[in-house]
Amino acid sequence: MPPEKHPPAEMFEENFDLRDGLLTLKGPLVELRRRLDALFREWATIVGAVEYSFPPVMSVSSLATADYFSSFPHLVTLVSRIDPSEGSVERFVSSARHSSLEQIGKEHLAAARYVLPSAACYAVYIDFRGRQLEEDLFITLLSPCFRHETGYEAGRRQWAFHMREIVCVGSEGSVQYFLGTYREFLKGKMREAGLPFTVAEATDPFFDKRDPRRIIQRLEPLKHEFLFNGSLAIASVNFHRNFFGERFRIRDRTGMVAYSGCVAFGLERWLFACTQQFGPDWNLWPAPLKPSPSAATT
Amino acid sequence: MPPEKHPPAEMFEENFDLRDGLLTLKGPLVELRRRLDALFREWATIVGAVEYSFPPVMSVSSLATADYFSSFPHLVTLVSRIDPSEGSVERFVSSARHSSLEQIGKEHLAAARYVLPSAACYAVYIDFRGRQLEEDLFITLLSPCFRHETGYEAGRRQWAFHMREIVCVGSEGSVQYFLGTYREFLKGKMREAGLPFTVAEATDPFFDKRDPRRIIQRLEPLKHEFLFNGSLAIASVNFHRNFFGERFRIRDRTGMVAYSGCVAFGLERWLFACTQQFGPDWNLWPAPLKPSPSAATT
Repeated sequence: MPPEKHPPAEMFEENFDLRDGLLTLKGPLVELRRRLDALFREWATIVGAVEYSFPPVMSVSSLATADYFSSFPHLVTLVSRIDPSEGSVERFVSSARHSSLEQIGKEHLAAARYVLPSAACYAVYIDFRGRQLEEDLFITLLSPCFRHETGYEAGRRQWAFHMREIVCVGSEGSVQYFLGTYREFLKGKMREAGLPFTVAEATDPFFDKRDPRRIIQRLEPLKHEFLFNGSLAIASVNFHRNFFGERFRIRDRTGMVAYSGCVAFGLERWLFACTQQFGPDWNLWPAPLKPSPSAATT
Repeated sequence: MPPEKHPPAEMFEENFDLRDGLLTLKGPLVELRRRLDALFREWATIVGAVEYSFPPVMSVSSLATADYFSSFPHLVTLVSRIDPSEGSVERFVSSARHSSLEQIGKEHLAAARYVLPSAACYAVYIDFRGRQLEEDLFITLLSPCFRHETGYEAGRRQWAFHMREIVCVGSEGSVQYFLGTYREFLKGKMREAGLPFTVAEATDPFFDKRDPRRIIQRLEPLKHEFLFNGSLAIASVNFHRNFFGERFRIRDRTGMVAYSGCVAFGLERWLFACTQQFGPDWNLWPAPLKPSPSAATT
């Protein structure tokens, strides 16, 4: 593994500020992250992906359909509220009024009905639940994502971060072709850009550990991760087989259970990798990492 | 109140899709919302505002400092997780495994330590807590915001939406000048654009209803709302006096408790208003609502 280049220390201290797993970005870094996102949207035009903006929360019931809670119970970030039933809000307010509140005890909470998701593309399968597709689906979306981890590091691992995805839902052949296209496309772009990377076949986070489907992935790689400097996964290309199609009853245009796959970019990790490699000055970034001027405004 | 123009019905049905208070946008509407945000960022350059990206959640303890929970207990959206203590996760997983999960009962939840905020600018006062400013502070930020309401309407009122703000923290005179400047600027821009609007002096949501400060606002307007077609608040200009400066111990450069004020834009409401008024075709939108090409890429 080659030694990592480091941008000036004050840039990380002042502009790449992590506290309790939560990142604050300042000034040019906010703009650089936006331009990286514009670049990934431009890359999504290869397959003519339509952009969606889904809600930032997903229902417990829809994610339970995908074994979400039995697969990653530690990771899950839940959404709740003060119990709105008769008298509860008043009890909470009087208990909270004269204390310096550090947390709100579960006795005051309503049951959690929503989740801040750990990955963007669940929203697609939820939205197309029960549908038969007229043609292969290509969607791009950006989502805040949340993962409780045991440790955090600025730019590399946050509780809250942003994920841009390009998703394909359709026949097995269409999804395999989509994933193969992006694997080669990303290798080419990263080579041209001079971003040092390796590609690793990785374990897949979509399926329950106790699920027999886990055995399949030992035979057939379902996930390819693009590792910056051999260690930081900045992009991944994922094949879900027909797992989501089956769970969300999505059929391809021939009536078969749909297959799906996605290409995912962690925006803060790309920001970290690109500023490490090329510095914070956008003008010094290589052309393959810059969206065309028309893409940046569309 | 003049009659409202309506874009083609299928646009609202397919692309402006509200379920359970949560909005899904599709295709060109996502891009239009992004361009509106670029416009507001351009408007923030008038005062040389620096852009920040703050975490999407704020701690319970920091918002309690601003009377958040006693002021709006019904509105609050809380963040929790499966109780991570010994045995709890296992108990949850075995209870969840064989049921179609609709919600996660409070018995499985950890106390809530974080909030999905109802307005963007709290993050600024939290971040500058305890600081003495070397000069007046001008910051712009975009934040997902969450408000539990009794009813929702696509584009007009959502549980989750986006707010772009321009914030000034500093001396009373600086903040008053900032707010006056933007009140006139917005009137000018909206007139030039041909967006029908009125300005209303409104009650202020930042202070506890039982707080004596509420009396002040009856004498002196603290909030000006820009109402599209006489009813939909698409922007507001807010004076907080030294409420946040006091609570978060922020001092201006002279050592006095800092004053603050903000200009807030609800992105989905602007999207609604502009598509109602000018249609979904960006090319037909008036020039004052388009960011300059350089701003759109910066």
